[in-house]
Amino acid sequence: MKTIPYKTYLSEDEMPRAYYNLRADLEKDHSPLLHPITREPATLTDLEAIFSSELAAQELNNTDRYLPIPQEVLNFYRMYRPSPLVRAYYLEKELQTPAEIYYKYEGGNTSGSHKLNSAIAQAYYAKEQGLTGITTETGAGQWGTALAMACSYFDLKLKVYMVRCSVEQKPHRKVLMETYGATVIPSPSHTTEAGQSFLERDPDSPGSLGMAIAEALEVAAADPDYRYTLGSVLNQVLLHQSIVGLETKAALDNLQKEADILIGCAGGGSNLGGLIGCFIGDKIQGKKAPRIIAVEPASCPTLTRGKFAYDYCDSARKTPLAKMYTLGASFVPPAGHAGGLRFHGMSPIISQLYHDGLIEEARNYGQKDIFAAAVFFARCEGTLPAPESAHAIRAAIDEALKCKAKREKKIIVFGLTGNGYFDLAAYDAFNKNLLENNSLGDATLAQALKELANLHQ
Amino acid sequence: MKTIPYKTYLSEDEMPRAYYNLRADLEKDHSPLLHPITREPATLTDLEAIFSSELAAQELNNTDRYLPIPQEVLNFYRMYRPSPLVRAYYLEKELQTPAEIYYKYEGGNTSGSHKLNSAIAQAYYAKEQGLTGITTETGAGQWGTALAMACSYFDLKLKVYMVRCSVEQKPHRKVLMETYGATVIPSPSHTTEAGQSFLERDPDSPGSLGMAIAEALEVAAADPDYRYTLGSVLNQVLLHQSIVGLETKAALDNLQKEADILIGCAGGGSNLGGLIGCFIGDKIQGKKAPRIIAVEPASCPTLTRGKFAYDYCDSARKTPLAKMYTLGASFVPPAGHAGGLRFHGMSPIISQLYHDGLIEEARNYGQKDIFAAAVFFARCEGTLPAPESAHAIRAAIDEALKCKAKREKKIIVFGLTGNGYFDLAAYDAFNKNLLENNSLGDATLAQALKELANLHQ
Repeated sequence: MKTIPYKTYLSEDEMPRAYYNLRADLEKDHSPLLHPITREPATLTDLEAIFSSELAAQELNNTDRYLPIPQEVLNFYRMYRPSPLVRAYYLEKELQTPAEIYYKYEGGNTSGSHKLNSAIAQAYYAKEQGLTGITTETGAGQWGTALAMACSYFDLKLKVYMVRCSVEQKPHRKVLMETYGATVIPSPSHTTEAGQSFLERDPDSPGSLGMAIAEALEVAAADPDYRYTLGSVLNQVLLHQSIVGLETKAALDNLQKEADILIGCAGGGSNLGGLIGCFIGDKIQGKKAPRIIAVEPASCPTLTRGKFAYDYCDSARKTPLAKMYTLGASFVPPAGHAGGLRFHGMSPIISQLYHDGLIEEARNYGQKDIFAAAVFFARCEGTLPAPESAHAIRAAIDEALKCKAKREKKIIVFGLTGNGYFDLAAYDAFNKNLLENNSLGDATLAQALKELANLHQ
Repeated sequence: MKTIPYKTYLSEDEMPRAYYNLRADLEKDHSPLLHPITREPATLTDLEAIFSSELAAQELNNTDRYLPIPQEVLNFYRMYRPSPLVRAYYLEKELQTPAEIYYKYEGGNTSGSHKLNSAIAQAYYAKEQGLTGITTETGAGQWGTALAMACSYFDLKLKVYMVRCSVEQKPHRKVLMETYGATVIPSPSHTTEAGQSFLERDPDSPGSLGMAIAEALEVAAADPDYRYTLGSVLNQVLLHQSIVGLETKAALDNLQKEADILIGCAGGGSNLGGLIGCFIGDKIQGKKAPRIIAVEPASCPTLTRGKFAYDYCDSARKTPLAKMYTLGASFVPPAGHAGGLRFHGMSPIISQLYHDGLIEEARNYGQKDIFAAAVFFARCEGTLPAPESAHAIRAAIDEALKCKAKREKKIIVFGLTGNGYFDLAAYDAFNKNLLENNSLGDATLAQALKELANLHQ
């Protein structure tokens, strides 16, 4: 048999030309978004007040299996896609596992992560609609950087509310966004009513994605030529990220390989949803499909310890309500180093898939454990992973070690969503043994879930 | 005609399996290295005291046209090579130039630059010889990072002397090297006699590559199980870097394109020498070959304003003397942001090629001008370049604009040696309009060249 190359690149001709809309294939769609005041299912008109019109339509679309990728977006994708599917030969060797390990590497572009896949689509639709600019929030800074690149490309204005503790942990993320022309405001801030109210409650608030979303939404709502954008959670984002799974599957097909286990980290669900989409499609159609494992931080364990309930997506309770696994919109995760996973909720699609058993397993790891995996991986595979991605690495290593114990030759595929160039303060803390596992305490969790329960009374 | 893809990847099978040793084809080799005390041509024995034996032999080899790449090094290369040759469609479009612009992108690996190509080879030969560890210097940190990755892979100890102003400009480079297991010491330091003497002369010295080399050499010389390594200047380094040019040429051949202009930034010469090697080979054989432009910083203009003379490679004057373009071993370049180009001398091979007209042109740019080019490039092509690479970008843009003025459809190829993830403090300074062009003053230059002249009396 021919040797499998270390990196498998698809040709540009093989790059998907349409997004895959998993919802068209699902027997049971997720429960609808609800208007925050009327509690009626959100309409297209409701959503058009928040998002550009095409994105609002995508948010509700559960009928079209494929949506063509606009040519201008395809042109941009050519700058950094198809991304490689990498065989982790050196990781396998170090682990002495009979398993084959592959990872889809999305960290090779300047934004440093998979977020660019949706950023460029969202910027495109805003531009098409003739908007002046967009607002957004960012945690780790990967989404903000991606959107800054996309807005620079389409000459759109961009205001980014960046979670304060992330600004402090990685000031260079802010500089990078500014280099691409974006305005970056640490959140919570005094520039919005929502921000002011958060600061009144806690002047030293580290911020959270929920708070930053509230601020970005408020600013967008105040200007008819602006709309809000979000880098995860939403159906539209998972739709755009479906390109990750489609490419992964095409590359595996080229190698004549079938995944047994598919692993993704999960914060809001953009990476996981994109990676698993077409594999879930196979599963629904009764084809052979991998067991899926969602991995989240012990400090923000939405799927593993949250409730499946309607909740707001932001801390100011202004967004539509989504039926999802959540720790409660008032929950502020501790300032851990995987900023991209610090979200109290989870994509409604991912939540429904997990609830229905189409995602077979969710697990969480402490940050010390995931950094140990990250450093182990970096030293044998070369690539320095983002802490978010290190969650998937940790799970892949654990699965590979199980294969070793059982002498099973399984095929493990995971998503390596981004690089860790902007996370070296966290690596420094780990190297100096200053990191703790940072698990969410039972009392804090109970309090957060109690507030969530109050919402439903 | 088929559309040229945005990125051209060679397959792993097409990756070169031998380094190209340009010296075997040169009519006139460079003048020999001279022993620092006897001033006689350095022998293999002299060099084996400094370098591992195989590298010492490579340093002197001007007869073998091709040297096979060891299998273990080829295995490592597969992790990140072949690197892509990218068509800069968006840069062309922004410039409205009829020229075609291509760049060989070496910044896609975790070390962030082309330096890994030589680092892994040097670590391999040290390991083969049974050494315990190696020492080195690093400026911008790209070489040190690359060597840290390579030493981690082969389980070798590594001590890195890092130029102090670079440590201060990019502390995360240090963390990255430490994450891969290296020991990093800011230079000048109190850990060596050379460092102490530099600090006595100037306690606030920003350091320089010349000083850091002196310290790393001293430490290696004190332990028979250690050797010194260098990331540029040397023949062995240009030999390893020849893989860059070989891949570039193979990719252009696949596209049925021939470069008219070939551009590389030049500090010690590792990138430029690697990129142009096989193209110079063509030129010598009378084949069509590109016009070559070397680009350096106005703050350290070795080729454009230095002298072609014998000089030491380090500030402590302990290394063999090399015949090269130099600003004098006592010259301390201002603390500019392209740390990788802050070397007083230049590869003897590059120097000889420039002297003999095989490199047709050298030019220098101020740092403000190169950052302007870097930001322009980042915004249209996505990739954030290292400041070193931005010198080549600036020259490529200028050449493309000349083509526009003359309506010439030339093919311009340049080396994009690394990414700028660790240079955001410099980008921040540029964004805030705090950077100056930082040209070397005439008086400073005259003083440096006077000291060089004293050496030859």
